[in-house]
Formats: sequence, structure tokens, C-alpha cells
Amino acid sequence: MKNRFTLAALRHFACQAFEARHFSKHHARLSAELLVRADARGVDSHGVARLSGYIRLIEAGRLNPEPVFAWKQTFPTLCTLDADKSIGFIAASAAMEKAIEMAATTGCGMVAVKNSNHFGIAGQYALMPTGHNMIGMAFTNASPLVAPTHSTERLLGTNPIAVAIPALVNKPFVLDMATTTAANGKLEILERKKQQTPVGWIQQKDGKDTTDPSGLKSGGALRPLGSFPHSGSHKGYGLGAVVDILSGVLSGANFGPWVPPFVAFLPMAEQLVGEGIGHFFMAFRVDGFMDANDFKGRMDLWMETFRNAQHQGEEPVLVPGDPEWALEAEREQNGVVLLAPVVEDLNTLAIKLGIAPLAAD
Amino acid sequence: MKNRFTLAALRHFACQAFEARHFSKHHARLSAELLVRADARGVDSHGVARLSGYIRLIEAGRLNPEPVFAWKQTFPTLCTLDADKSIGFIAASAAMEKAIEMAATTGCGMVAVKNSNHFGIAGQYALMPTGHNMIGMAFTNASPLVAPTHSTERLLGTNPIAVAIPALVNKPFVLDMATTTAANGKLEILERKKQQTPVGWIQQKDGKDTTDPSGLKSGGALRPLGSFPHSGSHKGYGLGAVVDILSGVLSGANFGPWVPPFVAFLPMAEQLVGEGIGHFFMAFRVDGFMDANDFKGRMDLWMETFRNAQHQGEEPVLVPGDPEWALEAEREQNGVVLLAPVVEDLNTLAIKLGIAPLAAD
Repeated sequence: MKNRFTLAALRHFACQAFEARHFSKHHARLSAELLVRADARGVDSHGVARLSGYIRLIEAGRLNPEPVFAWKQTFPTLCTLDADKSIGFIAASAAMEKAIEMAATTGCGMVAVKNSNHFGIAGQYALMPTGHNMIGMAFTNASPLVAPTHSTERLLGTNPIAVAIPALVNKPFVLDMATTTAANGKLEILERKKQQTPVGWIQQKDGKDTTDPSGLKSGGALRPLGSFPHSGSHKGYGLGAVVDILSGVLSGANFGPWVPPFVAFLPMAEQLVGEGIGHFFMAFRVDGFMDANDFKGRMDLWMETFRNAQHQGEEPVLVPGDPEWALEAEREQNGVVLLAPVVEDLNTLAIKLGIAPLAAD
Repeated sequence: MKNRFTLAALRHFACQAFEARHFSKHHARLSAELLVRADARGVDSHGVARLSGYIRLIEAGRLNPEPVFAWKQTFPTLCTLDADKSIGFIAASAAMEKAIEMAATTGCGMVAVKNSNHFGIAGQYALMPTGHNMIGMAFTNASPLVAPTHSTERLLGTNPIAVAIPALVNKPFVLDMATTTAANGKLEILERKKQQTPVGWIQQKDGKDTTDPSGLKSGGALRPLGSFPHSGSHKGYGLGAVVDILSGVLSGANFGPWVPPFVAFLPMAEQLVGEGIGHFFMAFRVDGFMDANDFKGRMDLWMETFRNAQHQGEEPVLVPGDPEWALEAEREQNGVVLLAPVVEDLNTLAIKLGIAPLAAD
């Protein structure tokens, strides 16, 4: 198929693009790898489709291609990183590495990051500690698109929660979820197909329900997980709030309505309350609680128990992460089909940056 | 009103009841305080209405009134507690105190608890660190009543997540939520009133939706937060799973379908995979990230921003914890009205234990 590309080709292209905008070789390679990991795992909205958006942030002076990190540490387990307007990929990777390093000696490490930008998919940072027999958690705030329960204002981002937990023979458990009923990427897909959304995904400007996926663009808002007060939307709002507070309030980044938009052409809020967007990372050793292999064996039992549960209809019960692991294996093999507008956007980008165009498979 | 009781009277009664079943004076007082705190904060299903249930667990030999705690610690920040079949109140309080103690010196502390019983409401343990300028989190697994997305089997409890965060002039932020669309207690209230539930709270034995609140008792299940696959129920399931893994798999307690039921007359699962039910606690210092007063001032700004948000209709936007703080202040003043069957149950209990009956206000 014409628009099918290998992951290697996507990585190479993204790497060239970042280098053309003054990323170091190492930072370009790491950013490209983490960007394309989103395509591999099926979160297409966070993959190469966003590459030109990051480049525009550099051009607007909001993303620094040559950041100098400043670490502040008072206790052996806790640390704040000022990421100097770095791309989120680099800041998040460094922060989770630091959390793992602290956890290796003390048992647990937590890092709050300010002055950063979007970091792609949260799950890949949560996964980093699992290879060290640790549990990982990753959080980030994001541009305000979500109205709290009862509100007509957009005050929170889709603020994801990611938790990854190692097992013995199984791939790690990975929960990686927006704290909204549906992620923004899913809206865009429906809008492109001119289809309606299910009830409860978005609200209009006046707060009333709508199934028109363009409702978000005409002043509406995404609804928190739970959708409505009678079905628990205050819980999704509360979870999104915790993510905003850990990532933004605690780190010294912006929070709530002040979080800068991802798109460079949208104006920043006035009188910012912090620097950039914020993330929060956590890693802790499972052998601080029980023997690591015993724990991982228990995780295998947990996973098999849930996968073998009785189910209604044809859909089996999945363990969080199962669909992404399956998709990743398939796409490592067969590559990814990009939508025509994404390919076109990347070709335009190649011309602008003076790099070789993306090579189809 | 006849069935109105002061919190002091409820505390005194519960304390006498626990002492009559061989709790030490200190353990009886602490358990009574934590039990009645649920009534004070409006979670009536977890308050004195459950007292006779705890007493029956003692009589069945499943709850040890004189537990000897065994702590296992390998790293300065992590610890496992074998609670020796303790009532959850005592185990959870001791565990969170230990987490605070570890956090005081290292920045962060985490405690997993096994071999415990139900601990009432999670929020009150999450609140403990806030007085030390720390953020607190509390989790517990519970008897299986919840079917994962697509499943017809009950494999998870209502597995709550509680997070408490201190502010400067405001009461702490407290999120305390079941990971289901609705808590079991709300079902019981509707059933008593012979009303239907909203769509999405429960499913029948065959997995189909029902609005009959008794559906749970005839082999149905609670639905995870998000209710249906199209509205994100895999997220509620994933959150409940994380709580089960941290509380049960990591601690050495039972997990999933093996978690023992609260009611003493229901049989335990065969071939248990651990001991008792499990909890997980976390405390960490905010001044490990920024000056504590700066952080708490930023929390005040966060809270005021959300409370002052534009809203649809008459309901204002609330900060998680606001309704409970308001109810607690009112009930400290005016006491609590108990339902007639609860009063009757407590009077029967008083006769059985040979203690003075509950004194109405």
C-alpha cells in the first residue's frame, strides 16, 4: 500500500527533522523513537501526525531544541526538574531515569517536571521501570479541553494516568488512559469520517450534550470519564484534577486553564502561573514488598485469571495493555498506514526542513 | 428527632462494642473514631451501619481483636505489614503512620498491608499526611462485586482510590472514589426506596444492562466507572485493577475473585492466593518539590479557580472533598439521623454484647 511505512523509516524521518531544527544527535534519536512508539502502539494521534506541530513550537520559540536541565533535590527520593522548554520526550525520559536511579538505592523515586512540552504517550515512561523490577507511573497535564462536572468552562486537559507493572512470563500490565470519556484523537477520527460520537463524550458551549464531533471546536468541551453526574463524572474530573495538581501545581508548571496549548498558533494564557506544562513520574521496587519473582508470578496469575474470565458476546476480557502489545508486534512487522493528509503534511515538512521525503515501504 | 444521635454518642457506643469483643482500649477508641468518621462525612454505608458486621467477623474468627503486627522492611521507603487479621482501621492507621514516618526522613514512604479486613473510608487515611505537609494516597481491594469490561464475572471490588492534598487557607483537597460508576451503598438506598438506578450502574447475570437495584443480588455485577465500552468502562476497570494489584498482589493478600467477602455468612473462596484483604498507602513531602507554603498557596489558587468556574444550571463546580467537609461540619454540630433498621440492629447488638443501648440526642 502506498501510504504504508516501516517504523524504521518513520524514526529515520523524524530524527532528520529534529536534527534539522538543532536537536543533538542523541536527543533527535530519542525523540524520534518515542514519537514513533505512539504510532507503533496504535495511538496514531500522538505519533508522526504531531511532528510538524513540534517543529512549529520550535519556530515559535516555545520549544527549546538545546535545553539545559536544572535539577533541584532536597530529599533522596524526590526531585524537581526545570526542563528549560525541552520537548517532552527528552524531559520525561530524563525524569523517569532519575526516578529509577533514586528508587534503586532508596526503594522509591518521584520526579516533578516543569517548563516542559507535550511528551507523547504516557505509557512508555511508565514502562521504563518495569525492566528494573519496579512499578512505574507517569502523569502529565495538557491544554485545557475538559469541563469539570457542572461547568461550561474548559479547565483541565485530557490529563492521562499511566501505570505499568512487570510480570514474569507475560508482557507488563500497562494502563494508559486519558481521564476523559474519550480522547481527543478519537473525536478527530469521527469528525473526519463525518460520524456522530456516542452520547457523553462532549458537551456544547452551553454545557448541553451533543453527539457532533465538531462541538469541541465551537466552544464545547470534552467530558470527564463518567460523562454525567449520575454516572460518576465527578470521579473522572477528580482524577484529572489529581493529575493536574501533581504535574502542574507541585512542579511549578502551569495548571488548569493556564496550561499552554499544543498548537503554536493559539495564544498563551495571560499572566501565567508557572512555566510550561508539567509532568510527574514515580518508580518503586517491587522487592521492597515481597520477592520480585514471587510478585511477578502473582501478576501472571492475575493476568491469566482476568483473560480467562467468562464474557458476554465475542469480546474477551483483556488485561490493560493487551491491545497495544498486539498492535506493536503487528506494526513492527508490517509497518503503519498513515492517512493521506498526514503524509502530505510530512512531505511539506521535508521540503521546509530540506530533508529527504518519507520513504514508503 | 428520635433517631438523631450525636457523633460522640456513636463513638462511645462503638467503642464499648469493640471493647466488649476484646479490643484494647486504644484500639477500640481508634476504631470507633474511624468508623464514625464515615457517618460524619456522609458515607453512611461505611459507618455504624457496619458495626454489627465487624462484630460478626470477630465471632466467625476472621477478624482478630488482639492482632500482633509484623513489619517487613528492606528499603528505607518501602514496607509490608502483616496485619494478623486486624480490623482494617487499626492496620490502615498504623500503616499510614509508618509511611509518614519514612517520608519524614527520606521524602516518601509506601506501605503495603496484607492479612487485613475492611478499613471503612479510604479518604481518612489519605488525609493523615496532609497535616505534615505531605500528599497522601490510600487504596484497598474489596470483595468481588464488579465485572471487568465485557465480562459477566465479578472479579474486582469497588476498589477505592483516595488522594488528599494540603492547601494553605482551604481544607485539603480529598478525592475518595470507588472505581465503579456507583458505590454499592447507593444501590442499597435505591433498593430500600424501591426506585430504579440510572442506566450503567449495574448489569444482570448475563451481562445485559438493568436498572433494577436488586440486580446485584441476583447474580449481576456493578459496572466499572465509564459504564460501557463506548463510554470508557475499560478505564474504570483498569483503575480498579491497579488498586487490586497494589493492595492485593504486591502485599501478599488475596486479590481479584479471591478477596474474602465482608459478610461473615458468605463462604471464603477455595484455595486462597494470599492472606485477608490488602491495602496500599503512600505519603510524600511537598517540600521535596517546592517550598511547602508556595505549594499550598498554589493549591488555594487551584481550588478558587475551579470553584469560581462558570457553570450550567444551579449546581456550582466543586473541589473534590467540598461536600464531605460541609457535611462533616454540619454533623459535628447536629449529629446524624440513622435509619430505623440501623438503630434496631445496634440495639440488638447492645443486648448481645451486654453494653448500654445507643442514647438518642
